[in-house]
Amino acid sequence: MGRVTVRRRVLRLRAGVASYRPDTLAGEEPLEIRVGGRPLAVTMRTPGHDFDLAAGFLVSEGVVRGADDIAGIRYCAGATADGGNTYNVVDVVLAPGVAAPDASLERHVYTTSSCGLCGRASLDAVHTAAAWSVAEDPLRTSPELLAALPDRLRAAQRVFERTGGLHAAGLFGMEGGLRCLREDVGRHNAVDKVVGDALREGLLPLRETMLMVSGRASFELVQKAVLAGIPLLAAVSAPSSLVVDLAEESGVTLIGFLRGDSMNVYTGADRLYTSSER
Amino acid sequence: MGRVTVRRRVLRLRAGVASYRPDTLAGEEPLEIRVGGRPLAVTMRTPGHDFDLAAGFLVSEGVVRGADDIAGIRYCAGATADGGNTYNVVDVVLAPGVAAPDASLERHVYTTSSCGLCGRASLDAVHTAAAWSVAEDPLRTSPELLAALPDRLRAAQRVFERTGGLHAAGLFGMEGGLRCLREDVGRHNAVDKVVGDALREGLLPLRETMLMVSGRASFELVQKAVLAGIPLLAAVSAPSSLVVDLAEESGVTLIGFLRGDSMNVYTGADRLYTSSER
Repeated sequence: MGRVTVRRRVLRLRAGVASYRPDTLAGEEPLEIRVGGRPLAVTMRTPGHDFDLAAGFLVSEGVVRGADDIAGIRYCAGATADGGNTYNVVDVVLAPGVAAPDASLERHVYTTSSCGLCGRASLDAVHTAAAWSVAEDPLRTSPELLAALPDRLRAAQRVFERTGGLHAAGLFGMEGGLRCLREDVGRHNAVDKVVGDALREGLLPLRETMLMVSGRASFELVQKAVLAGIPLLAAVSAPSSLVVDLAEESGVTLIGFLRGDSMNVYTGADRLYTSSER
Repeated sequence: MGRVTVRRRVLRLRAGVASYRPDTLAGEEPLEIRVGGRPLAVTMRTPGHDFDLAAGFLVSEGVVRGADDIAGIRYCAGATADGGNTYNVVDVVLAPGVAAPDASLERHVYTTSSCGLCGRASLDAVHTAAAWSVAEDPLRTSPELLAALPDRLRAAQRVFERTGGLHAAGLFGMEGGLRCLREDVGRHNAVDKVVGDALREGLLPLRETMLMVSGRASFELVQKAVLAGIPLLAAVSAPSSLVVDLAEESGVTLIGFLRGDSMNVYTGADRLYTSSER
Protein backbone atom coordinates (compact mmCIF):
# COMPACT_ATOMS: atom_id res chain seq x y z
CA MET A 1 0.00 0.00 0.00
CA GLY A 2 1.24 3.47 -0.81
CA ARG A 3 2.49 5.81 1.84
CA VAL A 4 1.84 9.47 2.57
CA THR A 5 5.54 10.31 2.47
CA VAL A 6 8.62 8.63 1.03
CA ARG A 7 12.32 9.24 1.78
CA ARG A 8 14.68 9.83 -1.14
CA ARG A 9 18.30 10.89 -1.57
CA VAL A 10 18.56 14.21 -3.33
CA LEU A 11 21.37 16.48 -4.53
CA ARG A 12 20.88 19.92 -2.99
CA LEU A 13 22.51 22.96 -4.52
CA ARG A 14 22.54 26.10 -2.40
CA ALA A 15 24.50 29.14 -3.61
CA GLY A 16 26.96 26.96 -5.46
CA VAL A 17 27.42 24.43 -2.67
CA ALA A 18 26.34 20.89 -3.48
CA SER A 19 25.47 18.17 -0.99
CA TYR A 20 23.62 14.88 -1.01
CA ARG A 21 21.02 14.46 1.71
CA PRO A 22 17.80 12.59 2.39
CA ASP A 23 14.60 14.37 1.42
CA THR A 24 10.98 13.62 2.23
CA LEU A 25 8.64 13.43 -0.74
CA ALA A 26 4.90 13.26 -0.90
CA GLY A 27 3.61 9.83 -1.82
CA GLU A 28 1.60 9.47 -5.00
CA GLU A 29 -0.26 6.49 -6.41
CA PRO A 30 -3.11 6.11 -8.87
CA LEU A 31 -6.58 5.50 -7.44
CA GLU A 32 -9.25 3.93 -9.59
CA ILE A 33 -12.77 4.77 -8.45
CA ARG A 34 -15.40 2.21 -9.38
CA VAL A 35 -19.14 2.37 -8.87
CA GLY A 36 -20.90 -0.96 -8.61
CA GLY A 37 -17.81 -2.61 -10.06
CA ARG A 38 -17.63 -0.34 -13.12
CA PRO A 39 -14.52 1.84 -13.50
CA LEU A 40 -15.49 5.51 -13.40
CA ALA A 41 -12.29 7.51 -13.01
CA VAL A 42 -8.61 7.33 -12.18
CA THR A 43 -6.87 10.04 -10.21
CA MET A 44 -3.27 10.39 -9.08
CA ARG A 45 -3.51 10.93 -5.35
CA THR A 46 -1.61 10.78 -2.08
CA PRO A 47 -2.70 7.55 -0.37
CA GLY A 48 -4.91 7.97 2.68
CA HIS A 49 -8.59 8.80 3.25
CA ASP A 50 -9.35 6.98 0.01
CA PHE A 51 -12.97 6.23 0.92
CA ASP A 52 -13.51 9.92 1.64
CA LEU A 53 -11.90 10.75 -1.70
CA ALA A 54 -14.20 8.39 -3.56
CA ALA A 55 -17.29 9.64 -1.73
CA GLY A 56 -16.36 13.29 -2.26
CA PHE A 57 -15.69 12.68 -5.92
CA LEU A 58 -19.20 11.30 -6.29
CA VAL A 59 -20.62 14.38 -4.52
CA SER A 60 -18.73 16.62 -6.96
CA GLU A 61 -20.13 14.65 -9.87
CA GLY A 62 -23.67 15.03 -8.58
CA VAL A 63 -24.10 11.29 -8.02
CA VAL A 64 -24.64 11.26 -4.24
CA ARG A 65 -25.98 13.87 -1.80
CA GLY A 66 -26.14 12.17 1.54
CA ALA A 67 -24.62 9.34 3.56
CA ASP A 68 -27.65 7.18 2.82
CA ASP A 69 -26.90 7.27 -0.91
CA ILE A 70 -23.91 4.99 -0.34
CA ALA A 71 -24.44 1.39 0.74
CA GLY A 72 -20.76 0.63 1.12
CA ILE A 73 -17.20 1.38 0.05
CA ARG A 74 -14.38 -1.14 -0.08
CA TYR A 75 -10.96 -1.80 -1.56
CA CYS A 76 -11.12 -4.35 -4.34
CA ALA A 77 -9.50 -7.49 -3.01
CA GLY A 78 -7.25 -9.58 -5.19
CA ALA A 79 -6.54 -6.60 -7.38
CA THR A 80 -3.21 -7.84 -8.71
CA ALA A 81 -2.44 -10.86 -10.85
CA ASP A 82 -1.00 -12.69 -7.84
CA GLY A 83 -4.06 -11.95 -5.71
CA GLY A 84 -2.55 -9.12 -3.70
CA ASN A 85 -4.32 -5.90 -2.90
CA THR A 86 -2.77 -2.68 -4.19
CA TYR A 87 -5.21 -0.56 -2.15
CA ASN A 88 -5.44 1.57 -5.28
CA VAL A 89 -8.85 0.41 -6.48
CA VAL A 90 -11.95 1.46 -4.55
CA ASP A 91 -15.47 0.26 -5.30
CA VAL A 92 -18.49 2.28 -4.17
CA VAL A 93 -21.82 0.46 -3.91
CA LEU A 94 -24.71 2.88 -4.25
CA ALA A 95 -27.91 2.51 -2.25
CA PRO A 96 -30.95 1.11 -4.06
CA GLY A 97 -32.61 3.79 -6.18
CA VAL A 98 -29.49 5.95 -6.60
CA ALA A 99 -28.68 6.25 -10.30
CA ALA A 100 -25.20 5.13 -11.30
CA PRO A 101 -23.13 7.70 -13.18
CA ASP A 102 -22.41 7.39 -16.87
CA ALA A 103 -18.87 6.06 -17.21
CA SER A 104 -18.44 7.73 -20.59
CA LEU A 105 -17.01 11.16 -21.28
CA GLU A 106 -20.30 12.70 -20.15
CA ARG A 107 -19.58 11.72 -16.58
CA HIS A 108 -17.99 15.08 -15.94
CA VAL A 109 -20.43 17.68 -14.71
CA TYR A 110 -18.77 20.31 -16.89
CA THR A 111 -19.11 18.16 -19.96
CA THR A 112 -22.38 18.44 -21.81
CA SER A 113 -23.68 15.86 -24.21
CA SER A 114 -24.76 18.66 -26.51
CA CYS A 115 -22.58 19.54 -29.44
CA GLY A 116 -21.93 23.17 -28.55
CA LEU A 117 -19.57 22.99 -25.64
CA CYS A 118 -19.08 26.39 -24.05
CA GLY A 119 -18.55 28.11 -20.74
CA ARG A 120 -22.30 28.76 -20.48
CA ALA A 121 -23.00 25.04 -20.76
CA SER A 122 -20.39 24.33 -18.09
CA LEU A 123 -22.08 26.75 -15.69
CA ASP A 124 -25.53 25.31 -16.41
CA ALA A 125 -24.28 21.77 -15.84
CA VAL A 126 -23.20 22.67 -12.30
CA HIS A 127 -26.51 24.36 -11.51
CA THR A 128 -28.40 21.35 -12.82
CA ALA A 129 -26.38 18.94 -10.71
CA ALA A 130 -26.63 20.93 -7.47
CA ALA A 131 -29.14 19.57 -4.95
CA TRP A 132 -29.23 22.74 -2.87
CA SER A 133 -28.56 26.44 -3.17
CA VAL A 134 -25.83 28.23 -1.25
CA ALA A 135 -27.08 31.68 -2.29
CA GLU A 136 -29.30 32.04 0.79
CA ASP A 137 -26.72 30.72 3.23
CA PRO A 138 -26.62 33.07 6.24
CA LEU A 139 -22.82 32.88 6.62
CA ARG A 140 -21.23 36.19 7.66
CA THR A 141 -17.54 36.71 8.31
CA SER A 142 -14.90 39.42 8.52
CA PRO A 143 -11.68 40.21 6.66
CA GLU A 144 -9.80 39.75 9.94
CA LEU A 145 -11.11 36.23 10.40
CA LEU A 146 -10.38 35.34 6.77
CA ALA A 147 -6.85 36.70 7.08
CA ALA A 148 -6.21 34.23 9.89
CA LEU A 149 -7.19 31.14 7.88
CA PRO A 150 -3.98 30.60 5.87
CA ASP A 151 -1.87 30.46 9.04
CA ARG A 152 -4.32 28.10 10.69
CA LEU A 153 -4.24 25.87 7.63
CA ARG A 154 -0.45 25.83 7.49
CA ALA A 155 -0.14 25.20 11.22
CA ALA A 156 -2.25 22.09 10.77
CA GLN A 157 -0.29 20.92 7.76
CA ARG A 158 2.30 18.75 9.39
CA VAL A 159 2.96 16.74 6.26
CA PHE A 160 3.44 19.92 4.29
CA GLU A 161 6.19 20.98 6.65
CA ARG A 162 8.06 17.84 5.74
CA THR A 163 7.59 17.70 1.98
CA GLY A 164 6.48 21.07 0.67
CA GLY A 165 4.74 19.13 -2.03
CA LEU A 166 1.21 18.71 -0.78
CA HIS A 167 -1.82 20.84 -1.44
CA ALA A 168 -4.21 21.42 1.42
CA ALA A 169 -7.94 21.97 1.78
CA GLY A 170 -9.39 23.08 5.09
CA LEU A 171 -13.02 23.32 6.12
CA PHE A 172 -13.67 26.04 8.70
CA GLY A 173 -16.74 26.84 10.78
CA MET A 174 -18.21 30.35 10.83
CA GLU A 175 -16.19 31.18 13.96
CA GLY A 176 -12.97 30.22 12.19
CA GLY A 177 -12.41 26.84 13.82
CA LEU A 178 -10.83 24.16 11.63
CA ARG A 179 -13.25 21.27 11.20
CA CYS A 180 -11.39 19.13 8.70
CA LEU A 181 -8.02 19.27 6.95
CA ARG A 182 -6.93 17.04 4.11
CA GLU A 183 -3.76 17.06 2.03
CA ASP A 184 -2.94 15.59 -1.34
CA VAL A 185 -0.62 16.03 -4.29
CA GLY A 186 -3.76 17.26 -6.06
CA ARG A 187 -5.86 20.13 -4.79
CA HIS A 188 -9.01 18.60 -6.20
CA ASN A 189 -8.35 15.39 -4.31
CA ALA A 190 -7.80 17.30 -1.06
CA VAL A 191 -11.20 18.97 -1.47
CA ASP A 192 -12.89 15.68 -2.38
CA LYS A 193 -11.46 14.15 0.78
CA VAL A 194 -12.88 16.99 2.90
CA VAL A 195 -16.29 16.76 1.23
CA GLY A 196 -16.37 12.98 1.36
CA ASP A 197 -15.61 13.02 5.07
CA ALA A 198 -18.52 15.39 5.65
CA LEU A 199 -20.84 13.32 3.46
CA ARG A 200 -20.10 10.15 5.35
CA GLU A 201 -20.71 11.98 8.64
CA GLY A 202 -24.12 13.07 7.34
CA LEU A 203 -23.18 16.76 7.35
CA LEU A 204 -24.15 17.77 3.80
CA PRO A 205 -25.02 20.46 2.82
CA LEU A 206 -22.17 22.18 4.67
CA ARG A 207 -24.07 25.35 5.59
CA GLU A 208 -22.25 28.23 7.30
CA THR A 209 -18.81 26.86 6.51
CA MET A 210 -15.77 28.18 4.65
CA LEU A 211 -13.39 26.22 2.44
CA MET A 212 -9.78 27.35 2.22
CA VAL A 213 -7.43 25.89 -0.40
CA SER A 214 -3.78 26.32 -1.25
CA GLY A 215 -3.10 27.35 -4.81
CA ARG A 216 -5.62 28.83 -7.18
CA ALA A 217 -9.42 28.69 -7.21
CA SER A 218 -10.22 26.52 -10.22
CA PHE A 219 -13.57 25.96 -11.86
CA GLU A 220 -13.76 22.47 -10.43
CA LEU A 221 -13.10 23.67 -6.88
CA VAL A 222 -16.03 26.10 -7.02
CA GLN A 223 -18.09 23.30 -8.53
CA LYS A 224 -17.16 21.08 -5.60
CA ALA A 225 -18.06 23.81 -3.11
CA VAL A 226 -21.46 24.35 -4.74
CA LEU A 227 -22.28 20.66 -4.79
CA ALA A 228 -21.26 20.30 -1.14
CA GLY A 229 -23.28 23.38 -0.13
CA ILE A 230 -20.28 25.43 1.02
CA PRO A 231 -21.01 29.19 0.71
CA LEU A 232 -17.44 30.55 0.79
CA LEU A 233 -14.24 29.54 -1.01
CA ALA A 234 -10.91 31.21 -0.23
CA ALA A 235 -7.73 30.59 -2.21
CA VAL A 236 -4.13 31.75 -2.05
CA SER A 237 -3.94 32.51 -5.77
CA ALA A 238 -6.09 33.94 -8.53
CA PRO A 239 -9.29 32.59 -10.06
CA SER A 240 -10.09 32.58 -13.76
CA SER A 241 -12.99 34.44 -15.37
CA LEU A 242 -15.20 31.34 -15.59
CA VAL A 243 -14.57 30.61 -11.93
CA VAL A 244 -15.83 34.08 -11.00
CA ASP A 245 -18.88 33.62 -13.23
CA LEU A 246 -19.72 30.32 -11.57
CA ALA A 247 -19.24 31.72 -8.06
CA GLU A 248 -21.42 34.74 -8.84
CA GLU A 249 -24.27 32.75 -10.34
CA SER A 250 -24.14 30.18 -7.55
CA GLY A 251 -24.04 32.70 -4.71
CA VAL A 252 -20.62 31.55 -3.50
CA THR A 253 -18.40 34.15 -1.86
CA LEU A 254 -15.06 33.88 -3.67
CA ILE A 255 -11.85 35.17 -2.09
CA GLY A 256 -8.54 35.14 -3.95
CA PHE A 257 -4.97 36.25 -3.24
CA LEU A 258 -5.55 35.70 0.47
CA ARG A 259 -2.11 36.63 1.81
CA GLY A 260 -1.41 38.35 5.09
CA ASP A 261 -4.11 40.96 5.68
CA SER A 262 -4.82 41.49 1.99
CA MET A 263 -7.26 39.70 -0.29
CA ASN A 264 -9.46 40.16 -3.33
CA VAL A 265 -13.18 39.58 -2.99
CA TYR A 266 -14.48 38.55 -6.40
CA THR A 267 -18.09 37.71 -5.52
CA GLY A 268 -20.47 37.71 -2.55
CA ALA A 269 -18.84 40.62 -0.70
CA ASP A 270 -22.11 41.15 1.19
CA ARG A 271 -21.13 38.25 3.44
CA LEU A 272 -18.20 40.31 4.77
CA TYR A 273 -18.46 42.83 7.58
CA THR A 274 -16.42 45.66 6.15
CA SER A 275 -16.40 49.44 5.80
CA SER A 276 -15.85 49.39 2.07
CA GLU A 277 -15.25 52.60 0.16
CA ARG A 278 -17.54 52.29 -2.81
CA MET B 1 -14.74 32.75 -28.76
CA GLY B 2 -13.12 32.88 -25.38
CA ARG B 3 -10.42 35.35 -24.55
CA VAL B 4 -7.06 35.04 -22.86
CA THR B 5 -7.92 37.67 -20.27
CA VAL B 6 -11.17 39.15 -18.97
CA ARG B 7 -11.75 42.36 -16.98
CA ARG B 8 -13.83 42.14 -13.79
CA ARG B 9 -14.67 44.48 -10.94
CA VAL B 10 -13.23 43.24 -7.65
CA LEU B 11 -13.29 44.36 -4.03
CA ARG B 12 -9.72 44.73 -2.81
CA LEU B 13 -8.90 44.66 0.88
CA ARG B 14 -5.44 45.83 1.88
CA ALA B 15 -4.61 46.22 5.57
CA GLY B 16 -8.21 47.02 6.41
CA VAL B 17 -8.75 49.43 3.53
CA ALA B 18 -11.40 48.38 1.02
CA SER B 19 -11.74 49.60 -2.55
CA TYR B 20 -13.47 48.48 -5.70
CA ARG B 21 -11.31 48.39 -8.80
CA PRO B 22 -11.06 46.57 -12.12
CA ASP B 23 -9.00 43.42 -12.17
CA THR B 24 -7.71 41.29 -15.04
CA LEU B 25 -8.53 37.61 -14.86
CA ALA B 26 -7.27 34.70 -16.91
CA GLY B 27 -9.83 33.44 -19.39
CA GLU B 28 -11.02 29.86 -19.03
CA GLU B 29 -13.28 27.79 -21.27
CA PRO B 30 -13.76 24.06 -21.76
CA LEU B 31 -12.08 22.46 -24.76
CA GLU B 32 -13.37 19.18 -26.12
CA ILE B 33 -10.75 17.23 -28.05
CA ARG B 34 -12.11 14.87 -30.67
CA VAL B 35 -10.23 12.39 -32.83
CA GLY B 36 -11.89 11.56 -36.11
CA GLY B 37 -15.12 13.02 -34.80
CA ARG B 38 -15.13 10.96 -31.59
CA PRO B 39 -14.96 12.84 -28.29
CA LEU B 40 -11.78 11.87 -26.43
CA ALA B 41 -11.34 14.36 -23.59
CA VAL B 42 -12.47 17.66 -22.17
CA THR B 43 -10.08 20.04 -20.46
CA MET B 44 -10.63 23.45 -18.89
CA ARG B 45 -8.12 25.69 -20.63
CA THR B 46 -7.23 29.27 -21.42
CA PRO B 47 -8.27 29.85 -25.05
CA GLY B 48 -5.46 30.18 -27.55
CA HIS B 49 -3.09 27.74 -29.29
CA ASP B 50 -5.88 25.19 -29.18
CA PHE B 51 -4.53 23.15 -32.10
CA ASP B 52 -1.17 22.91 -30.33
CA LEU B 53 -3.00 21.84 -27.17
CA ALA B 54 -4.86 19.09 -29.00
CA ALA B 55 -1.72 17.89 -30.80
CA GLY B 56 0.35 17.94 -27.62
CA PHE B 57 -2.34 16.07 -25.73
CA LEU B 58 -2.17 13.31 -28.33
CA VAL B 59 1.62 13.17 -27.98
CA SER B 60 1.24 12.78 -24.22
CA GLU B 61 -1.25 9.97 -24.72
CA GLY B 62 1.13 8.16 -27.07
CA VAL B 63 -1.19 8.52 -30.07
CA VAL B 64 1.04 10.62 -32.36
CA ARG B 65 4.83 11.00 -32.63
CA GLY B 66 5.41 13.25 -35.62
CA ALA B 67 3.79 15.95 -37.69
CA ASP B 68 2.95 13.38 -40.36
CA ASP B 69 0.73 11.46 -37.95
CA ILE B 70 -1.84 14.26 -38.13
CA ALA B 71 -3.72 14.87 -41.36
CA GLY B 72 -5.53 17.94 -40.11
CA ILE B 73 -6.95 19.83 -37.13
CA ARG B 74 -10.01 22.06 -37.22
CA TYR B 75 -12.63 23.67 -35.02
CA CYS B 76 -15.97 21.94 -35.32
CA ALA B 77 -18.24 24.33 -37.21
CA GLY B 78 -21.87 24.74 -36.23
CA ALA B 79 -21.11 23.53 -32.75
CA THR B 80 -24.06 25.24 -31.06
CA ALA B 81 -27.77 24.63 -31.50
CA ASP B 82 -28.10 27.83 -33.52
CA GLY B 83 -25.20 26.93 -35.82
CA GLY B 84 -22.59 29.16 -34.19
CA ASN B 85 -19.04 28.10 -33.46
CA THR B 86 -17.94 28.14 -29.82
CA TYR B 87 -14.31 27.47 -30.82
CA ASN B 88 -14.31 25.07 -27.89
CA VAL B 89 -14.47 21.83 -29.86
CA VAL B 90 -11.43 20.70 -31.84
CA ASP B 91 -11.33 17.68 -34.14
CA VAL B 92 -8.05 16.00 -35.00
CA VAL B 93 -7.96 13.85 -38.14
CA LEU B 94 -5.20 11.25 -37.92
CA ALA B 95 -3.14 10.22 -40.93
CA PRO B 96 -3.96 6.85 -42.53
CA GLY B 97 -2.45 4.01 -40.55
CA VAL B 98 -2.30 5.87 -37.23
CA ALA B 99 -4.37 4.02 -34.65
CA ALA B 100 -7.10 6.05 -33.00
CA PRO B 101 -7.02 6.12 -29.20
CA ASP B 102 -9.53 4.30 -27.09
CA ALA B 103 -12.09 6.81 -25.88
CA SER B 104 -12.85 4.78 -22.78
CA LEU B 105 -11.25 5.09 -19.40
CA GLU B 106 -8.20 3.29 -20.73
CA ARG B 107 -7.33 6.30 -22.85
CA HIS B 108 -5.07 7.59 -20.09
CA VAL B 109 -1.54 6.35 -20.32
CA TYR B 110 -1.38 5.90 -16.57
CA THR B 111 -4.53 3.83 -16.56
CA THR B 112 -4.06 0.15 -17.12
CA SER B 113 -6.75 -2.21 -18.27
CA SER B 114 -5.48 -4.78 -15.82
CA CYS B 115 -7.19 -5.18 -12.52
CA GLY B 116 -4.26 -4.39 -10.25
CA LEU B 117 -3.75 -0.69 -10.66
CA CYS B 118 -0.54 0.43 -9.01
CA GLY B 119 2.31 2.87 -9.34
CA ARG B 120 4.40 0.19 -11.04
CA ALA B 121 1.74 -0.19 -13.74
CA SER B 122 1.64 3.57 -14.21
CA LEU B 123 5.39 3.67 -14.77
CA ASP B 124 5.27 0.75 -17.20
CA ALA B 125 2.47 2.37 -19.17
CA VAL B 126 4.63 5.43 -19.84
CA HIS B 127 7.61 3.33 -20.92
CA THR B 128 5.40 1.31 -23.24
CA ALA B 129 3.95 4.41 -24.85
CA ALA B 130 7.28 6.19 -25.37
CA ALA B 131 8.61 6.10 -28.93
CA TRP B 132 12.13 7.14 -27.99
CA SER B 133 14.46 7.14 -25.01
CA VAL B 134 15.76 10.27 -23.36
CA ALA B 135 18.26 8.38 -21.22
CA GLU B 136 21.05 8.71 -23.79
CA ASP B 137 20.37 12.37 -24.56
CA PRO B 138 23.71 14.24 -24.51
CA LEU B 139 22.29 17.35 -22.79
CA ARG B 140 24.70 18.94 -20.29
CA THR B 141 23.97 22.09 -18.32
CA SER B 142 25.07 23.96 -15.21
CA PRO B 143 23.38 25.06 -11.99
CA GLU B 144 24.07 28.68 -12.99
CA LEU B 145 22.21 28.30 -16.26
CA LEU B 146 19.32 26.52 -14.56
CA ALA B 147 19.10 29.24 -11.92
CA ALA B 148 18.52 31.79 -14.68
CA LEU B 149 15.53 29.98 -16.20
CA PRO B 150 12.77 31.10 -13.77
CA ASP B 151 13.55 34.76 -14.39
CA ARG B 152 13.63 34.23 -18.14
CA LEU B 153 10.30 32.46 -17.97
CA ARG B 154 8.69 35.19 -15.88
CA ALA B 155 10.11 37.94 -18.07
CA ALA B 156 8.38 36.35 -21.02
CA GLN B 157 5.11 35.91 -19.18
CA ARG B 158 3.35 39.10 -20.03
CA VAL B 159 -0.09 37.69 -19.39
CA PHE B 160 1.04 36.47 -16.00
CA GLU B 161 2.02 39.99 -15.06
CA ARG B 162 -1.53 41.05 -15.63
CA THR B 163 -3.48 38.23 -14.02
CA GLY B 164 -1.25 36.27 -11.70
CA GLY B 165 -3.45 33.32 -12.52
CA LEU B 166 -1.71 31.56 -15.36
CA HIS B 167 0.72 28.70 -15.23
CA ALA B 168 3.63 28.75 -17.63
CA ALA B 169 5.69 26.16 -19.47
CA GLY B 170 8.88 27.18 -21.27
CA LEU B 171 11.03 25.12 -23.58
CA PHE B 172 14.70 26.10 -23.49
CA GLY B 173 17.63 25.14 -25.69
CA MET B 174 20.84 23.78 -24.20
CA GLU B 175 22.35 27.29 -24.22
CA GLY B 176 19.42 28.60 -22.18
CA GLY B 177 17.56 30.38 -24.95
CA LEU B 178 13.76 30.33 -24.72
CA ARG B 179 12.32 28.49 -27.72
CA CYS B 180 8.65 28.40 -26.82
CA LEU B 181 6.50 29.74 -24.00
CA ARG B 182 2.86 28.86 -23.39
CA GLU B 183 0.52 29.86 -20.59
CA ASP B 184 -2.70 28.37 -19.35
CA VAL B 185 -4.88 28.10 -16.27
CA GLY B 186 -3.69 24.49 -16.21
CA ARG B 187 -0.01 23.52 -16.12
CA HIS B 188 -0.69 20.37 -18.08
CA ASN B 189 -2.32 22.38 -20.83
CA ALA B 190 0.62 24.78 -20.98
CA VAL B 191 2.99 21.83 -21.50
CA ASP B 192 0.71 20.23 -24.08
CA LYS B 193 0.71 23.53 -25.99
CA VAL B 194 4.52 23.62 -26.00
CA VAL B 195 4.81 19.99 -27.10
CA GLY B 196 2.06 20.35 -29.71
CA ASP B 197 3.79 23.37 -31.22
CA ALA B 198 7.01 21.37 -31.53
CA LEU B 199 5.23 18.35 -32.97
CA ARG B 200 3.56 20.42 -35.66
CA GLU B 201 6.94 21.97 -36.52
CA GLY B 202 8.40 18.50 -36.96
CA LEU B 203 10.77 18.89 -34.00
CA LEU B 204 10.01 15.75 -32.00
CA PRO B 205 11.83 14.23 -30.20
CA LEU B 206 13.01 17.41 -28.48
CA ARG B 207 16.60 16.38 -27.89
CA GLU B 208 18.96 18.61 -25.93
CA THR B 209 16.15 20.78 -24.57
CA MET B 210 14.95 21.69 -21.08
CA LEU B 211 11.36 22.17 -19.94
CA MET B 212 10.67 24.63 -17.12
CA VAL B 213 7.25 24.77 -15.46
CA SER B 214 5.69 26.92 -12.77
CA GLY B 215 4.26 24.98 -9.86
CA ARG B 216 5.09 21.41 -9.00
CA ALA B 217 6.44 18.57 -11.12
CA SER B 218 3.53 16.17 -11.39
CA PHE B 219 3.56 12.61 -12.71
CA GLU B 220 1.80 13.72 -15.87
CA LEU B 221 4.35 16.46 -16.57
CA VAL B 222 7.24 13.97 -16.49
CA GLN B 223 5.14 11.66 -18.65
CA LYS B 224 4.69 14.49 -21.16
CA ALA B 225 8.43 15.23 -21.13
CA VAL B 226 9.28 11.57 -21.75
CA LEU B 227 6.81 11.22 -24.61
CA ALA B 228 8.12 14.42 -26.21
CA GLY B 229 11.75 13.33 -25.79
CA ILE B 230 12.71 16.15 -23.40
CA PRO B 231 15.63 15.10 -21.16
CA LEU B 232 15.30 17.70 -18.37
CA LEU B 233 12.33 18.99 -16.39
CA ALA B 234 12.68 21.84 -13.90
CA ALA B 235 9.89 22.97 -11.57
CA VAL B 236 9.44 25.66 -8.96
CA SER B 237 7.92 23.29 -6.41
CA ALA B 238 8.34 19.73 -5.17
CA PRO B 239 7.77 16.46 -6.99
CA SER B 240 6.10 13.42 -5.46
CA SER B 241 7.74 10.04 -4.97
CA LEU B 242 6.19 8.50 -8.07
CA VAL B 243 7.38 11.44 -10.14
CA VAL B 244 10.95 10.83 -9.02
CA ASP B 245 10.60 7.11 -9.80
CA LEU B 246 9.37 7.85 -13.30
CA ALA B 247 12.11 10.41 -13.96
CA GLU B 248 14.79 8.03 -12.72
CA GLU B 249 13.62 5.07 -14.78
CA SER B 250 13.18 7.23 -17.87
CA GLY B 251 16.54 8.97 -17.63
CA VAL B 252 14.98 12.42 -17.20
CA THR B 253 16.94 14.93 -15.14
CA LEU B 254 14.46 16.24 -12.58
CA ILE B 255 15.00 19.58 -10.82
CA GLY B 256 12.67 20.84 -8.10
CA PHE B 257 12.48 23.88 -5.81
CA LEU B 258 14.30 25.93 -8.43
CA ARG B 259 14.37 29.30 -6.68
CA GLY B 260 17.12 31.85 -6.88
CA ASP B 261 20.44 30.00 -6.92
CA SER B 262 19.15 27.00 -5.03
CA MET B 263 17.54 23.82 -6.33
CA ASN B 264 17.10 20.14 -5.59
CA VAL B 265 18.32 17.63 -8.16
CA TYR B 266 16.25 14.49 -7.75
CA THR B 267 17.50 12.46 -10.70
CA GLY B 268 20.01 12.64 -13.53
CA ALA B 269 22.54 14.84 -11.71
CA ASP B 270 25.26 13.60 -14.11
CA ARG B 271 23.92 16.07 -16.67
CA LEU B 272 25.02 18.95 -14.43
CA TYR B 273 28.52 20.40 -14.37
CA THR B 274 29.04 20.73 -10.66
CA SER B 275 31.63 20.23 -7.93
CA SER B 276 29.39 18.18 -5.71
CA GLU B 277 30.55 17.08 -2.27
CA ARG B 278 29.65 13.46 -2.18
